[in-house]
Amino acid sequence: MSGLLAALAGDAELAAILSDAAEVEAIVRFEVALAEAEAEVGLIDPQSARAIGAAAAGFVPDWPELRSGMARDGVVVPALLGQFRAALPEPHRAALHWGATSQDAIDTALMLRLAQILPILLGRITLLRSRLASLAASHGANRLMAHTRMQAALPFTVADKLRNWDDALGRHHDALLAASPDLLVVQLGGPIGDRSSFRERGEQVAEGVAARLTLGVAPPWHTARDRIAGLGARLAMLAGSLGKIGADVAAMAQTEVGAAVLSAGGSSSAMAHKHNPVNAEVLVALAHYAAGLSGTLNHAMVHENERSGAAWTLEWLSLPPLVVSAGASLLRAEALLAAIVHLGDDQ
Amino acid sequence: MSGLLAALAGDAELAAILSDAAEVEAIVRFEVALAEAEAEVGLIDPQSARAIGAAAAGFVPDWPELRSGMARDGVVVPALLGQFRAALPEPHRAALHWGATSQDAIDTALMLRLAQILPILLGRITLLRSRLASLAASHGANRLMAHTRMQAALPFTVADKLRNWDDALGRHHDALLAASPDLLVVQLGGPIGDRSSFRERGEQVAEGVAARLTLGVAPPWHTARDRIAGLGARLAMLAGSLGKIGADVAAMAQTEVGAAVLSAGGSSSAMAHKHNPVNAEVLVALAHYAAGLSGTLNHAMVHENERSGAAWTLEWLSLPPLVVSAGASLLRAEALLAAIVHLGDDQ
Amino acid sequence: MSGLLAALAGDAELAAILSDAAEVEAIVRFEVALAEAEAEVGLIDPQSARAIGAAAAGFVPDWPELRSGMARDGVVVPALLGQFRAALPEPHRAALHWGATSQDAIDTALMLRLAQILPILLGRITLLRSRLASLAASHGANRLMAHTRMQAALPFTVADKLRNWDDALGRHHDALLAASPDLLVVQLGGPIGDRSSFRERGEQVAEGVAARLTLGVAPPWHTARDRIAGLGARLAMLAGSLGKIGADVAAMAQTEVGAAVLSAGGSSSAMAHKHNPVNAEVLVALAHYAAGLSGTLNHAMVHENERSGAAWTLEWLSLPPLVVSAGASLLRAEALLAAIVHLGDDQ
Amino acid sequence: MSGLLAALAGDAELAAILSDAAEVEAIVRFEVALAEAEAEVGLIDPQSARAIGAAAAGFVPDWPELRSGMARDGVVVPALLGQFRAALPEPHRAALHWGATSQDAIDTALMLRLAQILPILLGRITLLRSRLASLAASHGANRLMAHTRMQAALPFTVADKLRNWDDALGRHHDALLAASPDLLVVQLGGPIGDRSSFRERGEQVAEGVAARLTLGVAPPWHTARDRIAGLGARLAMLAGSLGKIGADVAAMAQTEVGAAVLSAGGSSSAMAHKHNPVNAEVLVALAHYAAGLSGTLNHAMVHENERSGAAWTLEWLSLPPLVVSAGASLLRAEALLAAIVHLGDDQ
Repeated sequence: MSGLLAALAGDAELAAILSDAAEVEAIVRFEVALAEAEAEVGLIDPQSARAIGAAAAGFVPDWPELRSGMARDGVVVPALLGQFRAALPEPHRAALHWGATSQDAIDTALMLRLAQILPILLGRITLLRSRLASLAASHGANRLMAHTRMQAALPFTVADKLRNWDDALGRHHDALLAASPDLLVVQLGGPIGDRSSFRERGEQVAEGVAARLTLGVAPPWHTARDRIAGLGARLAMLAGSLGKIGADVAAMAQTEVGAAVLSAGGSSSAMAHKHNPVNAEVLVALAHYAAGLSGTLNHAMVHENERSGAAWTLEWLSLPPLVVSAGASLLRAEALLAAIVHLGDDQ
Repeated sequence: MSGLLAALAGDAELAAILSDAAEVEAIVRFEVALAEAEAEVGLIDPQSARAIGAAAAGFVPDWPELRSGMARDGVVVPALLGQFRAALPEPHRAALHWGATSQDAIDTALMLRLAQILPILLGRITLLRSRLASLAASHGANRLMAHTRMQAALPFTVADKLRNWDDALGRHHDALLAASPDLLVVQLGGPIGDRSSFRERGEQVAEGVAARLTLGVAPPWHTARDRIAGLGARLAMLAGSLGKIGADVAAMAQTEVGAAVLSAGGSSSAMAHKHNPVNAEVLVALAHYAAGLSGTLNHAMVHENERSGAAWTLEWLSLPPLVVSAGASLLRAEALLAAIVHLGDDQ
Repeated sequence: MSGLLAALAGDAELAAILSDAAEVEAIVRFEVALAEAEAEVGLIDPQSARAIGAAAAGFVPDWPELRSGMARDGVVVPALLGQFRAALPEPHRAALHWGATSQDAIDTALMLRLAQILPILLGRITLLRSRLASLAASHGANRLMAHTRMQAALPFTVADKLRNWDDALGRHHDALLAASPDLLVVQLGGPIGDRSSFRERGEQVAEGVAARLTLGVAPPWHTARDRIAGLGARLAMLAGSLGKIGADVAAMAQTEVGAAVLSAGGSSSAMAHKHNPVNAEVLVALAHYAAGLSGTLNHAMVHENERSGAAWTLEWLSLPPLVVSAGASLLRAEALLAAIVHLGDDQ
Repeated sequence: MSGLLAALAGDAELAAILSDAAEVEAIVRFEVALAEAEAEVGLIDPQSARAIGAAAAGFVPDWPELRSGMARDGVVVPALLGQFRAALPEPHRAALHWGATSQDAIDTALMLRLAQILPILLGRITLLRSRLASLAASHGANRLMAHTRMQAALPFTVADKLRNWDDALGRHHDALLAASPDLLVVQLGGPIGDRSSFRERGEQVAEGVAARLTLGVAPPWHTARDRIAGLGARLAMLAGSLGKIGADVAAMAQTEVGAAVLSAGGSSSAMAHKHNPVNAEVLVALAHYAAGLSGTLNHAMVHENERSGAAWTLEWLSLPPLVVSAGASLLRAEALLAAIVHLGDDQ
């Protein structure tokens, strides 16, 4: 997404967590945790683990070379390990990434970032719900014509409408929170996902890595992407519920309806009198965009054999914009609600 | 889906539960439960409730007229109530559907059917998992070349592969089961979803209806379709995991690989020597089909105001084929696993 | 799609052309044309071709057995040929389907049906455009407030709005018409799509079949599904343009706007005063449904090697509902425009 | 898309043409052409047109302020015009953007960039086809086992397979070329798309702008997005056909099949013996990604009234990554074919 479009429909905070720099940093954290966990169970020399930790602290990636590696290998890890290894004094180089595979590093690094992102999303949902509570306090008693099938139906109150918005947000919050322990788990399988490369100590290593990274433990899930697809689906549903709020506000803010008055609205290059409910519209756009990406992410579940480069790349293409869309939806919804001056039929 | 295609990629059992006849029957059950619950709290005369129950027992729909009503009203309920009312002696007609709206009937009737469908899906997942356990017992120790990125990688065993398949199925089972109580709830909101038409007794009526229909209680969710989208997403993920199994079996059954031998395979109109892994392929097709439908269902969350005919119709178009696809995937997976004669590199 | 939903959002005329019965009939037509073309170039005995034609005239399928064959083989052709062959006296049986493969029959049979469907769609677009012309004649001069970004902008006339609707329909008409010759072509490739089974006479046979079936000739396109995807995309775009009309009418028909008055509207089970713009809403639903299906159809282009059962089945799942959605959109649009009593701000 | 992922699945050349800088430059070009065309027909003073051209030459955007404007107005044009106007001496400021609306600038600027992009895509398709011709010359006669439904079928030659790949590419080339004149048209409608703001000279102004920008002329298409959706569909189909090539090469390059030998392959972080067909896999991923985006773009056709901020924003979110995906697919396909050392069963 370009910088201009990102200003409208992006989320700089989440985008930074999903940036290349953050990914490389998370991979390096994984490698350090792996070395420590392996040293603990005797798979590598503790001195090697310390050397890896020391090298990590000062590691500066050569980005052009990483990009070349990515294009060549389809995954950044081989090139990154090459650089990291060059920064490691012998005899420690062989200990780096010992028994692991690229996917262990990439998937765990993703989880480290999702572990940062989920609390942000949860916090924003909570903030949005408190914003709805404030609106209910200030405008909830106002009369509002309910509309069904695009026609005026019967009057109710602003509180009735806000309650419907809030109910869904509450469910999304609780579902995201409840899914976190199962979602935020380490990936550790080795080359073919059976942990055999860890010589009977795979489970201990996985636990050691997980403990160091504050993630959960799970059997290898390298080809079972339901966690990722499930997160994507929840984020698309969240964007959908926020899109519903956007559609409602846009409908209420129509000139002829006038049941929502916004303090700020987009100006027009041609019509000075107009105030466009930009944030409401962007919420609708993001809901549809996220719905499409969630569908695409589901296609990526058909993951042939022990690692599908095609399915995995499709996941990389789909998940980050989906996460950003959900985050952006929350930001836009907050801005939209904050701009509400009046809700209700009588002004 | 045509009958021929349904024979390949359909699910007659679930399709019957989603049929028009089953829907009308479920709506009638809702109306009877509603009348009883309303009589209990004094909103209608208990004699009317009994009359409604009696009329329901003998009710035979006039299908052509229902179809006309559907085309005219966008929902079958007004025409159906007209027919039902004609079968009711006065003075009970006004008591039918008292305080309720079409969506209360349609959504609750959907939940009644989903309450039948979920145990079937859960049972099939369990059956599939026991089939996987049998395969693990019989072939699990066999050596199998693992493949990553479409290349032979390192050998492991059949059990390692089966475990990955099974893990995902276990999570789908548990997630479907865990979601059921929140999903399978009555819809009761009245015309604009605020229950005001039930004169302060909406919650009691909802509880009475729910108890009679063995559903849960929830605030009106007429415009908050996250339950539906969430179910759809889970079903698409289930189809995705089964598609992964299909992709794996098709890859293993390749002539040049020969790591899966199937007892039954499709015959070819032109090549008598061929045995096609038809069920494996259909699993892949269904996974992609379900992924698309799940995305579409997510679009239907943008539900403007108190009832969106557009979003609701889109949901009707998307959810039934998605449910059937998931059911069909389970049937095809069961047939595929049942036809496995050998798994492993050595025959 | 169930019968009730089909009454609202289906298209009985196109559904009949896409029915199992019509497909089997078209396959039989293909086999007859193939036999005649092959007899003409000396690949089979002319007496066999006559016997095949005679048997076709009286052929009655055994449907349950066809469904079993479909489930077993993944394609109906082997079972169908078995039945057809049983109706053929020897020594003609070997001449049936000589050199051809299932896909030749299925794909050509699809084209025969699309050749029936396209003129229907074109005729409906033309009818719709004449309806728009009538509306322009009767209401075009009426003042209408234009709306941008959900806000009243500046006044223009009803004719201005109708012109925008009509422009897009004109382009769809022309694009469908222009695409027809390249789209409506025979498929003839033999088992692996190289026509080698036709012993140097493949091109002549293809021409003979095409001439008999009034289709065009093209190289085998068994794995190059751009024709199908391209048709699907156009139909989704058509549904999208009609969905835009639906969205406009629904917006104009809002109680508070009152710029479109419809003679017929859906009645409500709970609110007798309401007239819902059902057809307008269904157009929006169908546009989104078709968009999703078109995306899914595009996924089916990844067609590994010389025939992908997975991709082909996915195509079968997606294309028919997409065609029906486009047809239904045209029917609903026609009904919607026919019901317009008034357009414009002043009544 | 992050820089690392872009190295694998992006297209730097097309991304640059779709960048913010290129968009702003194209908008400025539109404004200059508009002023000149308006001066020519007497709508503004020729001196103003010259002043606008002079200011354009030296215009340097204030990017942070543009991003703020984008977030506020939902479109960059008001902020951009504010900056441009500040660079214009009076009395010329009122002449800038005279009679036009944001969408005129944005849509025409898009077309200017698409006019750059289409020849690049066409050139790459042609290059790819010549690459296929070379492969046919060098390896076409080699025997190759054809595969249907994931099973070895019958032998044919490499040339047979290449021909199928090439046929589809030829159709995409011709379709893109044929669509260009209708696609690459100026947008000029004024605030509500009826050209009334141009005082009877709208058609002349449109022609003047089009001539200056080497674009075609068309009636305003501000709410009829079939051109955009049609381009997106074609690009997704192109990516689909290239994904089919990727799927084929990946299938042929399987260790057990060995019918494609690639000179370069991705290395593995864990298995030194492996050579992964990375480009082939990325082609499959891009095909699915593009399919999803094309579906989403189709949803954006439901464009209520005279400008839908929601639908338009959805288009902005979907089209650029779709264009880049198609471009990247061509680059990856070229790299893949260039790396082919051997095709055919005998090595």
